[in-house]
Amino acid sequence: MEDFSFYRPTRIIFGRGSEEKVGEETKKYGKKILLHYGQGSIKKTGLFDKVMKSLKKENIEVIELGGVKPNPRLSLVREGIDVCKKQNIDFILVVGGGSTIDSAKAIAAGAEYDGDVWNFYSGDKVPVEKALPLGIILTIPAAGSEVSPDSVITDEDGLYKRFTSGESLISKFSILDPELTFTLSAKQTVIGVSDILAHIYERYFTQVKNAELTDRLAEATMKTVINNTRLVLRDLKDYNARAEIMWAGSIAHNDLLVTGKTGDWASHMIEHELSGIYDIPHGEGLAIVFPAWMRFVYKDNILRFAQFAQRVWNVDTDLNDLEWTALEGISRVEAFYREIGLPLSLSEIGIGEDRFEEMAAKCVEDGSVGQFRELKKDDIMEIYRSAK
Amino acid sequence: MEDFSFYRPTRIIFGRGSEEKVGEETKKYGKKILLHYGQGSIKKTGLFDKVMKSLKKENIEVIELGGVKPNPRLSLVREGIDVCKKQNIDFILVVGGGSTIDSAKAIAAGAEYDGDVWNFYSGDKVPVEKALPLGIILTIPAAGSEVSPDSVITDEDGLYKRFTSGESLISKFSILDPELTFTLSAKQTVIGVSDILAHIYERYFTQVKNAELTDRLAEATMKTVINNTRLVLRDLKDYNARAEIMWAGSIAHNDLLVTGKTGDWASHMIEHELSGIYDIPHGEGLAIVFPAWMRFVYKDNILRFAQFAQRVWNVDTDLNDLEWTALEGISRVEAFYREIGLPLSLSEIGIGEDRFEEMAAKCVEDGSVGQFRELKKDDIMEIYRSAK
Repeated sequence: MEDFSFYRPTRIIFGRGSEEKVGEETKKYGKKILLHYGQGSIKKTGLFDKVMKSLKKENIEVIELGGVKPNPRLSLVREGIDVCKKQNIDFILVVGGGSTIDSAKAIAAGAEYDGDVWNFYSGDKVPVEKALPLGIILTIPAAGSEVSPDSVITDEDGLYKRFTSGESLISKFSILDPELTFTLSAKQTVIGVSDILAHIYERYFTQVKNAELTDRLAEATMKTVINNTRLVLRDLKDYNARAEIMWAGSIAHNDLLVTGKTGDWASHMIEHELSGIYDIPHGEGLAIVFPAWMRFVYKDNILRFAQFAQRVWNVDTDLNDLEWTALEGISRVEAFYREIGLPLSLSEIGIGEDRFEEMAAKCVEDGSVGQFRELKKDDIMEIYRSAK
Repeated sequence: MEDFSFYRPTRIIFGRGSEEKVGEETKKYGKKILLHYGQGSIKKTGLFDKVMKSLKKENIEVIELGGVKPNPRLSLVREGIDVCKKQNIDFILVVGGGSTIDSAKAIAAGAEYDGDVWNFYSGDKVPVEKALPLGIILTIPAAGSEVSPDSVITDEDGLYKRFTSGESLISKFSILDPELTFTLSAKQTVIGVSDILAHIYERYFTQVKNAELTDRLAEATMKTVINNTRLVLRDLKDYNARAEIMWAGSIAHNDLLVTGKTGDWASHMIEHELSGIYDIPHGEGLAIVFPAWMRFVYKDNILRFAQFAQRVWNVDTDLNDLEWTALEGISRVEAFYREIGLPLSLSEIGIGEDRFEEMAAKCVEDGSVGQFRELKKDDIMEIYRSAK
């Protein structure tokens, strides 16, 4: 087991109607806040009104900034920073999914910084030392950004999708009400599930030995996600299934599941080039990239892939043919994705091979990617090709 | 699934030599600290010198208070509070196991309170609203107090063992170096293991349905503890096995494993009467009480006990005889305890039945105990009798 530190001070408030506590929580940190949200669906569902009522009750002044799109854009971040600085905002409240949260984190960091916010994300990466405090009402379980110190932003000028990380970007509180996810379509739900599973895979596939507890906790979380995805697709308003997926989405990405290990993250980097250029949902890209990555690297640690097959996918381990066991596990990942309606190839979502070279080159701009196996440009090209 | 909130802001610093970071962490909170420890073994092992060196490097002034015994006493707590108030202590550093941590938490709360510290623990229980910040170097994995908001203290005048809880009692940081546990004997180790498993049982055995992720995370943790106890008993200096048990001890008690559920806690209450009067190690008492409790209550939810048998103890579920499956699981708990050298009856540790009545009466002084099944005085008498 490797040494580690673990610090996740977010207060999780989970359950039915928990968004009604937002005023009470917010007033601990701010009096004049930026309310950041996405494409306005929160106004249609009535969530916006509920939130405003709770904030008003505590006499909190609210400046609105909506309009976050999936793969959140740097231009809106800059606008938000400007508002925060001019209006002396002291807290950011996010109502939304991963994109909105990541956009808010970028604004939070930029509002407390004199330079250009993109410095946190690109080149030598200026460390985020200070940020406005933020709180979250989560509406899409997927990105895990509600518990992580990370933020991913796309610079639409050049289509670079890059990330930063910092303890001050960890949310003060995250409100998780599974009922808020009832309106997600089957498609939106499984795209989130793909993202959640990918966050666990990135931490699970490691060359570090002896992290039994962490492995077993990861397997427990994956099994729960798989079971409850099937349940929720039968009934999009199954509260318990929605709740399991929502809580699993946070556990998948709060770094508990990498304690004592080192994560891989190559597949995320390979996917970021896809969604950066083609603006596809991140979870959809991951459903295509991850099985391709698995088939490309499994020989580097057949035992680990066999354990994954046995414990997560209930494959009967063939001790005489562990490679078959490992491959059977990967086949079940693919079969499950197919079953729940996720794409498995780039052609299915209309992406051809004309920009593979460009994407692979951008992906390794800061050096190689991956820990399970270190991948260079040619490896990434091969993964794109096998996923075409 | 039930609604819940989850807030565990302790910074965990885990790994070899992590105690050398104590000065650096402590200086974030205090300049004049109380160093609280137990019977002085830390002076024999060299840990004390390492800690002092790290603290001195940061120019931190240290007032020592050792002498904590298992089942920590109120009298030493009062002494500590007196020292803190007179010396203007601003931080408490604990080096030790659960008893020392619990003693420190009582001191931390009492130092910021004008009344009698026992008010937090007994009668109507004054809520702990403020406490000195504290940090921990853990030397015994067992109680989980390094991540919990709880403290258990014994008033030796009347032999009452009572608990309190409060967010301000959550440690700022907890340093976990598995190598510090190499000197624990096999006996000390398994007593800790019994405590760790009991913390999971208390949360696992519930009548709440639909908490799949929480169940699976608990099962993952139990399996890891069971496997690694066997490994560590083969080699008391097996780093990885020690590390798994240590990290599992924190996960077992940080309340992650009760998210969406309600814990039981009857067995802890029943045991507290034993260790309060007879001064036995808490983990030893729990090894005796828990299987007796399981046999007394299993019929109230045979499915849950069958799931426990199947998923944790690898019992082949007999769908035609789930009661047999449930009972087989309990038998395996008992067999495991016997295998690792824990007692299963009160007579083995020299406790007779003469004070059963008195203990059962004290146990329900504040009403009944337990959630899985509500237990009254007669029920508790029967559990003591079946464990005699």
